[in-house]
Amino acid sequence: MVLGGDGYLGWPTVMYFARRGHSVAIADSLAKRRWEEEVGGEPLFSRPTLQKRVRLWNRSGQGTEIALPQGNVVDIAANPGATLGFVREFLPDAIIHYAEQPSAPYSMMSRSRATRTQADNIVGTLNILFAMRDIVPDAHLVKLGTMGEYGTPNIDIEEGWIEIEHRGRKDRMLYPKRPGSFYHASKVADSVNIEFACRSWGLRATDLNQGVVYGIHTPETLLADGFVTSFHYDGVFGTALNRFIVQAVSGVPLTVYGRGGQTRGYLNILDTLQCVELAVTHPAEKGEFRVFNQFTEQYSVNELARRVQYVANSEFGIDATMASIGNPRVESEEHYYNAKNSSLISLGLHPHLLTDEVIAEMMGSVIAAKRNIEPEVIMPTVKWKP
Amino acid sequence: MVLGGDGYLGWPTVMYFARRGHSVAIADSLAKRRWEEEVGGEPLFSRPTLQKRVRLWNRSGQGTEIALPQGNVVDIAANPGATLGFVREFLPDAIIHYAEQPSAPYSMMSRSRATRTQADNIVGTLNILFAMRDIVPDAHLVKLGTMGEYGTPNIDIEEGWIEIEHRGRKDRMLYPKRPGSFYHASKVADSVNIEFACRSWGLRATDLNQGVVYGIHTPETLLADGFVTSFHYDGVFGTALNRFIVQAVSGVPLTVYGRGGQTRGYLNILDTLQCVELAVTHPAEKGEFRVFNQFTEQYSVNELARRVQYVANSEFGIDATMASIGNPRVESEEHYYNAKNSSLISLGLHPHLLTDEVIAEMMGSVIAAKRNIEPEVIMPTVKWKP
Repeated sequence: MVLGGDGYLGWPTVMYFARRGHSVAIADSLAKRRWEEEVGGEPLFSRPTLQKRVRLWNRSGQGTEIALPQGNVVDIAANPGATLGFVREFLPDAIIHYAEQPSAPYSMMSRSRATRTQADNIVGTLNILFAMRDIVPDAHLVKLGTMGEYGTPNIDIEEGWIEIEHRGRKDRMLYPKRPGSFYHASKVADSVNIEFACRSWGLRATDLNQGVVYGIHTPETLLADGFVTSFHYDGVFGTALNRFIVQAVSGVPLTVYGRGGQTRGYLNILDTLQCVELAVTHPAEKGEFRVFNQFTEQYSVNELARRVQYVANSEFGIDATMASIGNPRVESEEHYYNAKNSSLISLGLHPHLLTDEVIAEMMGSVIAAKRNIEPEVIMPTVKWKP
Repeated sequence: MVLGGDGYLGWPTVMYFARRGHSVAIADSLAKRRWEEEVGGEPLFSRPTLQKRVRLWNRSGQGTEIALPQGNVVDIAANPGATLGFVREFLPDAIIHYAEQPSAPYSMMSRSRATRTQADNIVGTLNILFAMRDIVPDAHLVKLGTMGEYGTPNIDIEEGWIEIEHRGRKDRMLYPKRPGSFYHASKVADSVNIEFACRSWGLRATDLNQGVVYGIHTPETLLADGFVTSFHYDGVFGTALNRFIVQAVSGVPLTVYGRGGQTRGYLNILDTLQCVELAVTHPAEKGEFRVFNQFTEQYSVNELARRVQYVANSEFGIDATMASIGNPRVESEEHYYNAKNSSLISLGLHPHLLTDEVIAEMMGSVIAAKRNIEPEVIMPTVKWKP
């Protein structure tokens, strides 16, 4: 069962598992499409409705049929009854949970968006935990978290847990989190609730603290036109590398926030699929709350921008410029950053690294859709400190 | 401004500050009274409506007049507009925030109570943070948290922050939390949001991680009959020592959950008032998120029960028995526990310790109200693992 199966990562995940013979069902509230309209940020490639893309897939013969509950949508936050009914009907072995408001800037736009982000994300996850407890207590929850939960501590970032020695005594503790937005804080709250549910009810869960994902296509999105996923480049839902590539193509400067020393973990969308599959096929133990840091490489914003600038110039003859703008966020612009990511590697992850070829391939796809780009939506408008 | 000024601690706090000449306003949704009705747990001493107790106080000449916004109630979670209006009208220097669903068992009763506890507590606190940012950015938030946020780690519990040395590097981190219920988890989420608001917006806040409070009277509750506070002894809203005293008086065994080695921090209600006053009169710096552990002594459940048993026998000739019952919670029953509480002591807290006299005085008050006791509501009915 894929919660949030209509999204940038959710839809490719659904196809990936269906193509490999799994029974897959989607729950999605379609809230993300409404939020996109709210901020006027359309994805670069227009995508069919959820119902249509599912019908297209089911007619394509590319894999198992994808189930949509009652041919319709489920809001796991607002409709606990429908959520329970869906879990009871489908009886999932694994629940892959992407169904959250995913944007830090969106959560910082206003009071009402901050509170809705937290209430919806937290309550939706609680509803799933109760449904698991009551209906499928042996199922495995694979929950998408974010590396942004950790902030930028001055010590190494471990995978969710840390051995602390303090005044002559030791304990294995949950790694201290210090999130950078109300969105990131909602994921911290989810992690706390999920750990509690594993400890108290014996559920099993894997919390995937994911880095910034880049990429446009997966083998499945390329199978047919209607299978494309939603690629965002706007200031609210777009993320660093994806946005830089669109900026280079549309001839506006690559906007680096502040000094650009902000370092984060990054990964290719292909590796998101691989990681989620590795988590699902190697489930956590009963009662175990397992955390994997899901990224393959660390880059500073300046490094990323320079990589894009180089490829734009050398491969496409585009003279991309970089511009530092006032940082709309409150964050350290120079800091220590060393995050562990060995768990997924030891389960068998083979990273797709960020080569010049990968950047060039993405740039080629964006150039092909250049007429869709609206440069007006690229600049950040949401300030952390209004 | 006292949020939750109608509650067990809120109402005595309001009178305490009003008696000392502060301008005090109350915001309360009265939700707690509805929850009490829901679980059939009346307080031992019947109390007037909020409006009436405020009128009684204002006629009494015992201190400054207490303000109730528009003579009415404010729900900080459900009515962000009214909350904003109230803050704008009263322009508080300090906001003392008790306005949350305060019971762990209540939060574990059902899915809907778990989600309401978290959504209401978290959203209410967010609404206050936004109101502070926009209207009174220099005001000081004094927020009631709980020692239960920490769980029972095998290392000393510091006050909110901990210096961690890890692989040759150091940082001052937020102390890792591991809450014991969805209620406790809601307070963890609040702390994360408040720390973020201090860091990002420059607000100032003191998070008071309070132990289990005991006690019936304060100097102000004794000034008139109508000033009594709500003393709970039922399985949902009653807490350990208060409940044991009622059990002894009503002749039912003192119920110890499991082995009874659960150790927690405790404090007298008089010290809650003292601590909150110390926090208010020594505000945090701009941008500072300060955490105080607010308790004066540590006891195991067995120790507490034996203390009550001894006083019941020696002072009142009551032959109180103890009974271990199956633990309705999921928690360690034998564990290391050493929590720091030096911050409030160094600000000048003079603890009222749990002497036999204090227990005897409480027992005397409960005996005087013995006819109000309903023994049927004492036993725990809410199980963590249904």
